[in-house]
Amino acid sequence: MHDEGLENVWQAYKEAVRAGGNPQTLYQEQVWPALLDLWRRQPRVYPSRQPFAVSVHTLGTSPEATALAILGTGAETVYVIHTRDSASFLERLRRDTGKDLYPLEVGKSDVAAIYRHVKDLLERHPQVPVALDLTSGTKAMSAGLAAAGFFFQRFFPQVRVVYVDNEAYDPELRRPRAGTERLVILPNPHEVLGGVDAFLARELYERGEFAKAQAYFGRLVESTGDRQYELYALLSGMYRAWQALDFSEALKQGKKLLDRLSQDVWLNHPLNRARGDLEAQVALLEGVERFLRTRDFGELQGVLGLAATLLRLSERARGENPPLAALYAYRALELLLQERLSRLGRRAEAPGLTPEEAQGLREVLAGFLQIPPEAVEVPPKLGLLHLVAFLRLKGDSLLATLPQERLMGLSGVLKARNESLLVHGFLVPREKELQSLLSLAQRLGEDLAAGARPSLEPVPLGF
Amino acid sequence: MHDEGLENVWQAYKEAVRAGGNPQTLYQEQVWPALLDLWRRQPRVYPSRQPFAVSVHTLGTSPEATALAILGTGAETVYVIHTRDSASFLERLRRDTGKDLYPLEVGKSDVAAIYRHVKDLLERHPQVPVALDLTSGTKAMSAGLAAAGFFFQRFFPQVRVVYVDNEAYDPELRRPRAGTERLVILPNPHEVLGGVDAFLARELYERGEFAKAQAYFGRLVESTGDRQYELYALLSGMYRAWQALDFSEALKQGKKLLDRLSQDVWLNHPLNRARGDLEAQVALLEGVERFLRTRDFGELQGVLGLAATLLRLSERARGENPPLAALYAYRALELLLQERLSRLGRRAEAPGLTPEEAQGLREVLAGFLQIPPEAVEVPPKLGLLHLVAFLRLKGDSLLATLPQERLMGLSGVLKARNESLLVHGFLVPREKELQSLLSLAQRLGEDLAAGARPSLEPVPLGF
Repeated sequence: MHDEGLENVWQAYKEAVRAGGNPQTLYQEQVWPALLDLWRRQPRVYPSRQPFAVSVHTLGTSPEATALAILGTGAETVYVIHTRDSASFLERLRRDTGKDLYPLEVGKSDVAAIYRHVKDLLERHPQVPVALDLTSGTKAMSAGLAAAGFFFQRFFPQVRVVYVDNEAYDPELRRPRAGTERLVILPNPHEVLGGVDAFLARELYERGEFAKAQAYFGRLVESTGDRQYELYALLSGMYRAWQALDFSEALKQGKKLLDRLSQDVWLNHPLNRARGDLEAQVALLEGVERFLRTRDFGELQGVLGLAATLLRLSERARGENPPLAALYAYRALELLLQERLSRLGRRAEAPGLTPEEAQGLREVLAGFLQIPPEAVEVPPKLGLLHLVAFLRLKGDSLLATLPQERLMGLSGVLKARNESLLVHGFLVPREKELQSLLSLAQRLGEDLAAGARPSLEPVPLGF
Repeated sequence: MHDEGLENVWQAYKEAVRAGGNPQTLYQEQVWPALLDLWRRQPRVYPSRQPFAVSVHTLGTSPEATALAILGTGAETVYVIHTRDSASFLERLRRDTGKDLYPLEVGKSDVAAIYRHVKDLLERHPQVPVALDLTSGTKAMSAGLAAAGFFFQRFFPQVRVVYVDNEAYDPELRRPRAGTERLVILPNPHEVLGGVDAFLARELYERGEFAKAQAYFGRLVESTGDRQYELYALLSGMYRAWQALDFSEALKQGKKLLDRLSQDVWLNHPLNRARGDLEAQVALLEGVERFLRTRDFGELQGVLGLAATLLRLSERARGENPPLAALYAYRALELLLQERLSRLGRRAEAPGLTPEEAQGLREVLAGFLQIPPEAVEVPPKLGLLHLVAFLRLKGDSLLATLPQERLMGLSGVLKARNESLLVHGFLVPREKELQSLLSLAQRLGEDLAAGARPSLEPVPLGF
């Protein structure tokens, strides 16, 4: 797609150089005015012209290419980053483009200064399309501009990096053939590379945002045609459901994943490196699912898996949301206490206390609460504090050995469960209360696991 | 820091050129061997040498600089991205550096191909330091490498972009003065620019991760010395505490923020543009804090603010965590029903029902549950379903007008609150149940607000 007129100009220029004329002078006199005229009317932009409001250009010792870049971006507001040496070309650039320029001087290797200028300019023009043109200037200047451009695209999505390219080179004249210049808008690597979404999916997965990771991996199957991502989508789906306490769904996804990993075609899938951990996690989910179905506290793996899940969620919520962290911890503690109660053949909802037991319970509770036994009320269902007291009364191997003072400190927070803002009340637990709650639950969890608890940690993706 | 020997070599070279020798030939014969020898022994790297395992170089028509880059990075594994034209320099490069090179051919303007190569190479070497050297090659090649490098740093933090720079230029010879070359490791814009953390903080703020945003803004005060970030830290702290239902802390931060925004020095702070919304939100927090302190349902703004907060949290948790979403919705619904009950001068914990009311309640509940009235038990405290039934019995302006069928559908989910996996039971609410719960709560919320509910949306940061 060469311009007819320019083609002729170029041939005439070539003849004149062959006849012994000075190539530089002849170029400036014959070629440049025609080229400039063409770009003023109709610049060539690849893949297509875009309405830039602001352009920023590095300027070295080739002001012609920068002039074309300025005309090609067509921005109203033009900044030129130059060195002390290239300042002398600014006047010429103004004349050639007919634009007001804002000059910014930097040292020729001062990449940090270029970063700072780009940041300042983007902050000054945050909502408009900005072109960063690296055609001219030293490598350091161009690299700095490109670096800043692609770095800041994350925060200013309308930024584009551009440069003036040549499609043909004239070997005889040892310079690019006039008329084959074009302004190229560099694509964002993210837009070009399908597989890049895999990195973003991984980032989400590692941040524990499994629903979003699942969606990304799902889209990757479409965009890359690579079905290995289906297995990652299943994995993310398993953790998503698990985190949402939807154990039957988590189990379904986990089983499907193990099935796929056993197929010949996926034997070398990176997730097979974590096969052992995955199998242990799916077995744990199976246990929890069975426990939730049967409600049989004899399903030790299930009780343990559920309590460990709740404790993990509690730990994760702790910094951001203490009431929520407390809620998870309360429920974990309740389960772990009920499991111990079930070893005595009793149930919290209908403990069937003998009169002697009821009296004993009153006395233990009186000790916790520092009130007379006759002031203690024993309800028909056992709450957290009653469970602790009753297990202690019955000589529970762990709870009977804890110091009385520690349980006195806990009694307030255990009683406060129903008063929590998230349940029926208006209280928000303090960090100290949460800590004592969590540490008792963790102690019980460790006792139940007897050192054999499988890891709930999401497995490494292997890429 | 010039090398003595090279200094002499350069002077001798200059003399020889002045005496009419061919500058190219003389450079290759006299200067290059000395320079190469120096770099083989002791390459100059700025700011300091780093143990790169892999290096990737673009190669144009200046193989000398690339040879220095290969020696400067010192990597064992070296990839060279060349064009068809520059392939002829590969052999020379191997000889000069004594390294095995892996050549990768691209078109001279094919940025996408460079992205793809960089991605492939980084995936092949994910855990080691990789240098991307853009010294040689066309602008498109260098820009593509820089773009890929800084883009992928987010996912491969050990990637560095490097280039060979010259500290001095010899104007007489019109080429860089030998011995002043150095390999520069380009800093990441993030490391250079203090204020960049502000963008990351903004990203976190916009994602609703207020604790992390608060920490980032706090650090920005230190790293930039700019105290405007203190106000953003206060703002993030307000939303963090609010989201965690710590209303007194949220109020404290909000009031402090409004105080600061009123100081002369901050009158032009971008947050003052959202002043009206901020004041409304702080007033809402004040209402909630008062309600939580007095527990007086006459504090309508407080009830409304608390219920709206819980409903917002429910909506946010909905996709990821239905049990949690249900929990928030249950609590919001409870508050809104209790507020209506309080208009009748009653309390759910001790409703003080007359025998006629108890009988009437039994009949309404019997209708919901499709069982005979005598089978209905009326507990001493009113739960969610009882509240709905009692308000209906008393002709509540909204609840008495809802169709019986809708409430029949709700009765299961309202009764199921205590059976939730997060409270005392083993059930996980289904999406449909959650939906009916939320829509009733929202309806009650709108009725209470009467169109005047302030926005809970975090205000725009203004940068």
